[in-house]
Amino acid sequence: MSVLTLNCPVPVAARDQVMLGHGSGGKLSAELMREIFLPAFTNETLARMDDQAVLRIGGSRIAFTTDSFVVKPLFFPGGDIGSLAVHGTVNDLAMGGAKPLFLSVAFIIEEGLSMEILQRVVASLGRAAEACGVQVVTGDTKVVDKGSGDGVFINTTGLGLVPDGLFLSASQARAGDAIILSGSIGDHGIAILAEREGIEFESPVVSDSAPLHELVDDMLRATPAIRCLRDPTRGGVSSSLNEIAAQSHVGMLLDEASIPVRDEVRGACEMLGLDPLYVANEGKLLAIVDSSDADRLVAVMQAHPLGRDARRIGTVNKSDPGWVTMRTVLGTTRIVDMLSGDQLPRIC
Amino acid sequence: MSVLTLNCPVPVAARDQVMLGHGSGGKLSAELMREIFLPAFTNETLARMDDQAVLRIGGSRIAFTTDSFVVKPLFFPGGDIGSLAVHGTVNDLAMGGAKPLFLSVAFIIEEGLSMEILQRVVASLGRAAEACGVQVVTGDTKVVDKGSGDGVFINTTGLGLVPDGLFLSASQARAGDAIILSGSIGDHGIAILAEREGIEFESPVVSDSAPLHELVDDMLRATPAIRCLRDPTRGGVSSSLNEIAAQSHVGMLLDEASIPVRDEVRGACEMLGLDPLYVANEGKLLAIVDSSDADRLVAVMQAHPLGRDARRIGTVNKSDPGWVTMRTVLGTTRIVDMLSGDQLPRIC
Repeated sequence: MSVLTLNCPVPVAARDQVMLGHGSGGKLSAELMREIFLPAFTNETLARMDDQAVLRIGGSRIAFTTDSFVVKPLFFPGGDIGSLAVHGTVNDLAMGGAKPLFLSVAFIIEEGLSMEILQRVVASLGRAAEACGVQVVTGDTKVVDKGSGDGVFINTTGLGLVPDGLFLSASQARAGDAIILSGSIGDHGIAILAEREGIEFESPVVSDSAPLHELVDDMLRATPAIRCLRDPTRGGVSSSLNEIAAQSHVGMLLDEASIPVRDEVRGACEMLGLDPLYVANEGKLLAIVDSSDADRLVAVMQAHPLGRDARRIGTVNKSDPGWVTMRTVLGTTRIVDMLSGDQLPRIC
Repeated sequence: MSVLTLNCPVPVAARDQVMLGHGSGGKLSAELMREIFLPAFTNETLARMDDQAVLRIGGSRIAFTTDSFVVKPLFFPGGDIGSLAVHGTVNDLAMGGAKPLFLSVAFIIEEGLSMEILQRVVASLGRAAEACGVQVVTGDTKVVDKGSGDGVFINTTGLGLVPDGLFLSASQARAGDAIILSGSIGDHGIAILAEREGIEFESPVVSDSAPLHELVDDMLRATPAIRCLRDPTRGGVSSSLNEIAAQSHVGMLLDEASIPVRDEVRGACEMLGLDPLYVANEGKLLAIVDSSDADRLVAVMQAHPLGRDARRIGTVNKSDPGWVTMRTVLGTTRIVDMLSGDQLPRIC
């Protein structure tokens, strides 16, 4: 069991301050959601706890999702806060099966930010949006005094159109379903960490930040049997699968040997005492699909550049609802818990 | 002419750093928009520069608007950052004639924020949303390390439904139209400033923060001749009117005596060297309407609690397109320019 899961968090009510871990996408984030946010905003859509709301407005099914980006540093191998702010929100729309259409973009800039840096970030954001075929149609800019921010934070909120009849949700996994992962894990988190801490590798680790909507489009055309899609960002694969297991009241058994991790990422994780299952990704997805369509789906994914290394990594089961376990390469079985505390703050 | 308009800004390209004034809603904000943002995101919807995008998705006309809130202090007479984050976005939807339906809410929290403060802000936001009849359907929380934020910043992004056939835009003012203001100006800005600086008044100044969608609903039912609505927030009445004048290629003549300013606000402005025309409001609106319907519209507004002090404050004209001028109480005429620099940072 990872050392990261050995902390013993106290109930949020007993904490009197917000900690970095409350933004980790793991257990503390879930507690904050459950104890502070959900009681204030009760409604069915929010209670579904999917990565996007799917709303019926007029005659259309609209996917709606928001994310703020506070990644540090602003530029990193494979991307920057501008492209990440597009990919992150486009992916949250795509995970609901929506065709991404429009973005709002809101900047919170710290006084004194170099105009040249801002221009590079904005240009990158614009290029990423264009490459994804989404339009930035509305925006906002606030400036805070020096020392009250950190360069630039970006919020993007996305709108997409969900095809009639399509309903993906973390509450739909069923015993017997296959768990599919689109490629190697941990690249984004390790790329950020290496850049931030000045760690050098023989072959550099590059963020996997990428828009997944076209891969998802291919997948949805290949089979109607996809129950749920998730992009394992903050909190990593472990936290995403734990959320699905909890919301669907099912168990999951993973096969460690089948989970692709690049050698450099594995090496960095070993050196730093991190578990790749908890490290953030920004261009990967998890799919829960009816087992009978799993092989076909993997083949379709492998035909797409962003799914080349796709494979089946586990199975949904009935035993131990809410728990994710893993058969390790050593032949033992361990519990894969949600991230507890914060492994890598400001990763996105 | 106000001292605030006497600065002589250099072109944005010549500045190498972002300044507080770039977030003021005035001239510097407009420059940043024109020189950094618009070139990166060119599309027709954004180019209209309205407070909200109106999008056709499926068969529906959807209004979409975003705002980040960085107000300091978090709590002030008449509201807090939570209620303000709802009212601000609801009002931007309402200014497009949309019925506000849904909000996304994204928090950027500084490590160490008291959980009790967060809970109060979130509860206030939830109550304000409920009072407005809008649902918070999706959200995000990020935590930044101590010293990289300032308590809490909130982004809200709103979705609303625009009735078929309704088209309000800052580009539609025509010579002869009446300019109508819904009530006294400067209350929000002075309330924030007083709270921040510890200034005391005999009768306290309270923010006008309020949701305007029901007032707008009454107005739209009273006349089909409304060209444009704007809520004069950052940059105040002067900046909003200058934007409309520029986008509609018209001039405007205001009558100073008809612009309501509370005695306490006027006194505070005189003491502090501020011009109420540049001070932010969070519960007021400007309407440009065909002159023949102006009196009827004012009467309907006065019948609503948030429009009790509504009055006609000026007329759109053909002379000097792009310029706003004002007949002062002294009988002279002066130019009312956009805000230049930043009068009151972090006002919303």
